[in-house]
Amino acid sequence: MLYEINEKAIRLENQGKKIIRLNLGDPDLATPPEIVEAAYAAMKAGKTKYSSAYGEEKLRQKLAKIHGVKAENVVVTPGSKWGVFATLYLMTKGGGNIIIPTPYWTAYDLMAKSLGAQTKLLRTEMEDGWKVDLGKLEAMIDKDTKMIILNNPNNPTSKVMDPKTLDGIVEIANKKKVTILSDEVYGPISFIKTKSILEYETDGNFTHVLSNGFSKMFTMTGWRIGYIIANKPLIDNITKLNQITINNVPVFIQEAALKGLEMQKTLTKTIENEYEERAKIACQTLAKAGLSFTEPEAPFYVFPKRKGLDSEKFTLDLLDKGVAVAPGTSFGDYREHFRISLTAPRNEIKIGLDEISEALK
Amino acid sequence: MLYEINEKAIRLENQGKKIIRLNLGDPDLATPPEIVEAAYAAMKAGKTKYSSAYGEEKLRQKLAKIHGVKAENVVVTPGSKWGVFATLYLMTKGGGNIIIPTPYWTAYDLMAKSLGAQTKLLRTEMEDGWKVDLGKLEAMIDKDTKMIILNNPNNPTSKVMDPKTLDGIVEIANKKKVTILSDEVYGPISFIKTKSILEYETDGNFTHVLSNGFSKMFTMTGWRIGYIIANKPLIDNITKLNQITINNVPVFIQEAALKGLEMQKTLTKTIENEYEERAKIACQTLAKAGLSFTEPEAPFYVFPKRKGLDSEKFTLDLLDKGVAVAPGTSFGDYREHFRISLTAPRNEIKIGLDEISEALK
Repeated sequence: MLYEINEKAIRLENQGKKIIRLNLGDPDLATPPEIVEAAYAAMKAGKTKYSSAYGEEKLRQKLAKIHGVKAENVVVTPGSKWGVFATLYLMTKGGGNIIIPTPYWTAYDLMAKSLGAQTKLLRTEMEDGWKVDLGKLEAMIDKDTKMIILNNPNNPTSKVMDPKTLDGIVEIANKKKVTILSDEVYGPISFIKTKSILEYETDGNFTHVLSNGFSKMFTMTGWRIGYIIANKPLIDNITKLNQITINNVPVFIQEAALKGLEMQKTLTKTIENEYEERAKIACQTLAKAGLSFTEPEAPFYVFPKRKGLDSEKFTLDLLDKGVAVAPGTSFGDYREHFRISLTAPRNEIKIGLDEISEALK
Repeated sequence: MLYEINEKAIRLENQGKKIIRLNLGDPDLATPPEIVEAAYAAMKAGKTKYSSAYGEEKLRQKLAKIHGVKAENVVVTPGSKWGVFATLYLMTKGGGNIIIPTPYWTAYDLMAKSLGAQTKLLRTEMEDGWKVDLGKLEAMIDKDTKMIILNNPNNPTSKVMDPKTLDGIVEIANKKKVTILSDEVYGPISFIKTKSILEYETDGNFTHVLSNGFSKMFTMTGWRIGYIIANKPLIDNITKLNQITINNVPVFIQEAALKGLEMQKTLTKTIENEYEERAKIACQTLAKAGLSFTEPEAPFYVFPKRKGLDSEKFTLDLLDKGVAVAPGTSFGDYREHFRISLTAPRNEIKIGLDEISEALK
């Protein structure tokens, strides 16, 4: 119902209604002007031609350095979503199944189904701090399991996976020879350290796959640029798929992303601080309203619960009052939860939270 | 061998050698500055957010008006290549076969194979003016045929399909209930009128699919923007695929393309004139060198033949002399042909043509 809510919100806005938009992970902050200027300079310098389906060598080198890998292990993609899709496309040829812990980002499930792969959902609970049950995970893996998709930090819970659980998941995956695709798009701006899947790779012969992007860390959602880090054969195959589909990410967009990386410390610190502050404000109000939740450890979401809540009805009613959030059912079987995106200016977030509190009385 | 030649050319350039690049369809002309400025203005105006997977309404409306269709029949894609891939992805689920006249753009074949569809190649000959044999086409269609892909004007021959042959192909396709995907990316800048597949659609309930893009008509190759025009169900399904893959074409790139369309007459006239002039120069020299070819009716290619030529060997030898062209074998079974892209400044083209003539002596 994520898309339905969004379309209704747009419809209401078109009718002239003011809607406070806390339903999408698209930040209100602008792309930093330095990044815009870098793109413009590159366009003017004629970087508007076909280019490598691997991505620009300079950008690959920079990303390789940041992650402590080789440039040959990096491919640039038009958004991290494309990186995930391309990996699934290549790894689920001939069917098989994919294990996804829930709550989850809906796109994983939609991709797998579109590609003819089955999905096995591994439920986690707020009451357990959203921990993956290792025993259940191991029991779920069968001979047709092609992949485990982790989203760390998680959308919609904003939970960073605790390192011990991650250790356990990797151990099981290695034992069972199943690839982990770790989508760490919120990692570079998480409030506490996110242990990356790459920390388990020791010999350059990667077993697992990292997906990441520039959308969240530099407020570049609409620019569509991300990357995959993996073993060379997979990188080569994603590149071949790029060649017959998207060809290349525009070079001027790659230059803009590179500029972001050069300024990474400053830029991400600002973004992190703003979202940490917003999360604090949200937690205070939501606690007062009698909701249960785990505190966000990363941008941008809170995923509160109220026992007995029908979040689909709640969400639609709330939208009529001018506040858009997403029902828990959009992230798996979580009817009592809803997701608030803290991706609006603080004053709007405050009004939105007050409306939510009021509606729950 | 298209990619191999290109990589060798890049390697030689990196070694400091001057290579005249007549091997790719990437024009030497710059993207018009008005288009660059439109992109920059849009970026600065904050058009850097997630947006519709259908494409921007303004751009869809404009394209609909140009083609005499409704906006609901248009979806914006990151390059026309993605439009072709997405159409094939959706229409070859469960296998089947695709008919492609040759010589052809290799990507069609690679896409179909990647998707698990079979390709049936329908050979055409220079000596017949590259005409499709309608009898052969009809005989080739079987119950598993999902699509006929036409590239009109054609890469590598730069031949515009004569309207009578196209009439015949459409008639057969309609009778056999096979969809035609018509890639008309060179159409808006062809030297003679290209009859579009849309001219056969009368009731808004489209049978066939048009793929087009901005790369060639506005020298925007590296911007990655194109579009598909088709019936609403297919447009909706491509949009759903966009949602789980590329999400949307950056809005600032869509604004740039829209600017191009607003200036279309001026811009395409300049591009057409330049390429027509280049084609004339090329034809004169190639005829003197004793090569056979059909005269280009569109940018950017000439596809000459020399009886008994081994174009792979010829191409590699020529590259060592500093001129890159593509062997005919990259476009099907055409060993005696090679493709010259007239996508370099005139003085370079002249030197390149002289080297070719010399090498053929």
